Amino acid sequence: MQLAFIGLGRMGSGMARNLLRAGHGVTVYNRTREKTKALEADGAAVADSPAAACRQAEAAITMLSDDDAVAEVVFGESGVARALGRNAAHISSSTISTRMARLLATRHAEAGQGYLSAPVFGRPEAAEQKKLVVIAAGPEDLVARFRPLFEAVGRETVVAGREPWQANAVKLCGNFMIAAMLESFGEAYAALRKARIDPHVFGHAMDALFASPVYANYGRIVAEERFEPAGFQLKLGLKDMRLALENARECAAPMPLASLLHDHFLAALANGQGEMDWSSIARVAARNAGL
Amino acid sequence: MQLAFIGLGRMGSGMARNLLRAGHGVTVYNRTREKTKALEADGAAVADSPAAACRQAEAAITMLSDDDAVAEVVFGESGVARALGRNAAHISSSTISTRMARLLATRHAEAGQGYLSAPVFGRPEAAEQKKLVVIAAGPEDLVARFRPLFEAVGRETVVAGREPWQANAVKLCGNFMIAAMLESFGEAYAALRKARIDPHVFGHAMDALFASPVYANYGRIVAEERFEPAGFQLKLGLKDMRLALENARECAAPMPLASLLHDHFLAALANGQGEMDWSSIARVAARNAGL
Amino acid sequence: MQLAFIGLGRMGSGMARNLLRAGHGVTVYNRTREKTKALEADGAAVADSPAAACRQAEAAITMLSDDDAVAEVVFGESGVARALGRNAAHISSSTISTRMARLLATRHAEAGQGYLSAPVFGRPEAAEQKKLVVIAAGPEDLVARFRPLFEAVGRETVVAGREPWQANAVKLCGNFMIAAMLESFGEAYAALRKARIDPHVFGHAMDALFASPVYANYGRIVAEERFEPAGFQLKLGLKDMRLALENARECAAPMPLASLLHDHFLAALANGQGEMDWSSIARVAARNAGL
Amino acid sequence: MQLAFIGLGRMGSGMARNLLRAGHGVTVYNRTREKTKALEADGAAVADSPAAACRQAEAAITMLSDDDAVAEVVFGESGVARALGRNAAHISSSTISTRMARLLATRHAEAGQGYLSAPVFGRPEAAEQKKLVVIAAGPEDLVARFRPLFEAVGRETVVAGREPWQANAVKLCGNFMIAAMLESFGEAYAALRKARIDPHVFGHAMDALFASPVYANYGRIVAEERFEPAGFQLKLGLKDMRLALENARECAAPMPLASLLHDHFLAALANGQGEMDWSSIARVAARNAGL
Repeated sequence: MQLAFIGLGRMGSGMARNLLRAGHGVTVYNRTREKTKALEADGAAVADSPAAACRQAEAAITMLSDDDAVAEVVFGESGVARALGRNAAHISSSTISTRMARLLATRHAEAGQGYLSAPVFGRPEAAEQKKLVVIAAGPEDLVARFRPLFEAVGRETVVAGREPWQANAVKLCGNFMIAAMLESFGEAYAALRKARIDPHVFGHAMDALFASPVYANYGRIVAEERFEPAGFQLKLGLKDMRLALENARECAAPMPLASLLHDHFLAALANGQGEMDWSSIARVAARNAGL
Repeated sequence: MQLAFIGLGRMGSGMARNLLRAGHGVTVYNRTREKTKALEADGAAVADSPAAACRQAEAAITMLSDDDAVAEVVFGESGVARALGRNAAHISSSTISTRMARLLATRHAEAGQGYLSAPVFGRPEAAEQKKLVVIAAGPEDLVARFRPLFEAVGRETVVAGREPWQANAVKLCGNFMIAAMLESFGEAYAALRKARIDPHVFGHAMDALFASPVYANYGRIVAEERFEPAGFQLKLGLKDMRLALENARECAAPMPLASLLHDHFLAALANGQGEMDWSSIARVAARNAGL
Repeated sequence: MQLAFIGLGRMGSGMARNLLRAGHGVTVYNRTREKTKALEADGAAVADSPAAACRQAEAAITMLSDDDAVAEVVFGESGVARALGRNAAHISSSTISTRMARLLATRHAEAGQGYLSAPVFGRPEAAEQKKLVVIAAGPEDLVARFRPLFEAVGRETVVAGREPWQANAVKLCGNFMIAAMLESFGEAYAALRKARIDPHVFGHAMDALFASPVYANYGRIVAEERFEPAGFQLKLGLKDMRLALENARECAAPMPLASLLHDHFLAALANGQGEMDWSSIARVAARNAGL
Repeated sequence: MQLAFIGLGRMGSGMARNLLRAGHGVTVYNRTREKTKALEADGAAVADSPAAACRQAEAAITMLSDDDAVAEVVFGESGVARALGRNAAHISSSTISTRMARLLATRHAEAGQGYLSAPVFGRPEAAEQKKLVVIAAGPEDLVARFRPLFEAVGRETVVAGREPWQANAVKLCGNFMIAAMLESFGEAYAALRKARIDPHVFGHAMDALFASPVYANYGRIVAEERFEPAGFQLKLGLKDMRLALENARECAAPMPLASLLHDHFLAALANGQGEMDWSSIARVAARNAGL
């Protein structure tokens, strides 16, 4: 397929590369042009605007940091919405709000364009290695038509429902699950450090108990307090908890643990940790324990 | 070795059986004698009191429900403390408070007896199949001497420190980690159900994300709301959160997530769920969402 | 002064009446015309649109339910912004977000109009009886110029700062303080009812302790579970906690108690209490106690 | 009446003095004898042990810091229980657990002695000035018989029920109400300080809103961060939240706000604030806001 790919951060670059590897034609756009070079060397065409990238595309995939960035790229002057053909579709892989996903679905439908939400789980290494988990949602025919794209970037595709925003709800709840794990590690390590127990002992026990690579990875990071460089910035984790809570409010489903996580991410931000890895939420528990 | 094994609930029975299989001589005691029969058939001797079970034993292993049960079995009229030899040791595998572990260490030392804490992770099936994770703590020579026992009941032994109570702190924090996961599942499922998303879709996504058998198991239980029969009773989960919080208070390390879990287990108990599986904490989130 | 008054709910009607009593000329507007009749009988002129009400006015006072209502009345087709004179000012007494207050300040300044935030504390009876507490903020000269209006509707005027949104921050934090009191009553009463203690005994003790009419009033309401008719609807309380949390996020100041209140209001809403008095947040604690 | 008064801290001294002023005969005991001197000058007899103080007494009033202190004074070698006559009663004014109150009731009944719980609200100045609020509970005839004593030390007596522990439940819930107010002040002030709003403005607004001397007093303390010297030590506030939560657990009534308060007091303790006034819980919110 002819594709537009917009947003070449660490996640987007890996995904675009895997789409090229799968044989698709990819035209990329990124606000800072610098980042397009590596993809160009791999065979991508480079466009000067989102609109220019979309003109011949069957699908435009966006991988951006937040609602505002998506709004600008899609609805802006030379945005996706103006250039995308009537039979083409916009696939948003960004972690955006369910409200924005509903807005995108409505607006693209009004313009005769398709829309799918397809956010992904996985850190940048997973994007590079085609090991993402893709959560897709939208009309069944569209999901079927673009499934090969999901398979080109991930190891598994989960279909969340027929309304695009449902995929975003699943993605936000998934990030909430990981953040809950980070907080539980943070509180446990703070208590255990004050009990003079080697944090690696606990990490080891949790490895044996959960047998999960996610626990193994983050357990080690928190035990060693190795919060820089960030794999996923704390301020983005804060944004995701905000979006999860907004979705929960719209659904009238209270999520007190998500509120706790939100408040601890905010405390971390207020104490200068916004650019650190989101696992540094553990420092809030440590600070409250006088460590 | 000659061993006494006291407390033949679902966990204790599996452990005692594996000690027999490993070739140790085991004398068992249980308050309700009924439960000793299966073990007797497997080759165990049966005693009439904790003291009687301990008389010839090199080690007395206790696997009981809480602090009070341990206090009665150890310090009671015909209790362990009165009968255990001076070179022998008491190994407590029960999930007890760190305070009780310190009391046991002190009292046994005064009587010239050894003491180890060796709580375990794993559900009854794991106990039966020798797949427990044993968290052991106490004087190094004692841990080394009794390590073969831990290896006879579990697939892995983690040494938490030289003070017995440290193993209990690790165990309580581990149960806190699992309970945190249960709560996060509960809140996510409540929000997703109100968003009309099939819970199995989310369970599937979390499987792909965490790749953990614990998430797979509990994710399914919560998705299907299959809370009976209980694998681990909610009222015991409440007790463990209470003990985790007591330990945290003694260490001056606040655990707000543990407080949240405690309060939700208590809400569940107040609404008649004390005998259900502890994963039914998910009902609190569901009820608060009007489900 | 010649005034426009827009929004004749229970609060607004009382305020408009007191402005008339103080000798000001008042032109009123309300979406449902029905509600203007009583004011007309008291001497107010009635306009067909916000714009029509504003044309001759030195100040336009708005008392509306939320940000959206204010946006429509101010920025809409026949809105305040189009009709208000260059030397005149908009005074918003609604409980709106700090963000909306900043937007209003900017837009009115661009149009050469003045803007003040002047939200009020007090229930409808207090509005009727000129017993409101007015929190005013904005440029000092404007506050001084319109102070007689605040004195006409309230028993006390507190100046929060020179930027209008600061008054809204104070108002939202004040509602947070009241909601915190409601939740504390709710939790205490739930525990005490389960301890078979007469709720009026506790209400009496809290009267003696706090000596506050607010505690006396709400203590009685919660003790008697007299949540209907609503003095202040729970769904509005939920909105205010949301706005307080948004302001807190913008200031990077975590408010975990506000999060708890938000989640309990949301649980109440999900359980059908949106139109009841906000003191019915107490039912969440009661339900969690199995009452 | 002939009375024994045990425990001459700042609260106890004021109460004992007012009993003397009311014409009762008072024999005092305090662990550190130094503190008995002022009372002796006012006409009190001084005893060498709790037992010695109780021998002729119709009632023994204890005003001590916690459960352990009461247990020692009552059940110890030369304790109250051994010396108090069969027709006399022990009146405990200390803030103790409901469990300890039940134990005291049982043990005194076994010894043929009466028992009342009569904890008080008020700071040391109020004790001195006979302005305490007394919460009394126990058998109706005993309450009636000793009511003159309550009236001698306080401005109001509230009868909580026929079981002594009910008074302790009310007292603990009352301290919870005050602590909730302190936390709400702390969070509001942290947000408002970051919004560059003068804290006294908010204090002033809350005065106008709540019209309560308790809000006026603590609002000022928190605004000025005047946490030393302590009127009521933070570590005692932590103890009271612990006891309130224990009572809530026994009643199966979750108190999530009490849990939050407990965790914030604990964070404050871990950061060196144990001896400061309990209003310094506000520092936790400030620290989490990066202030």
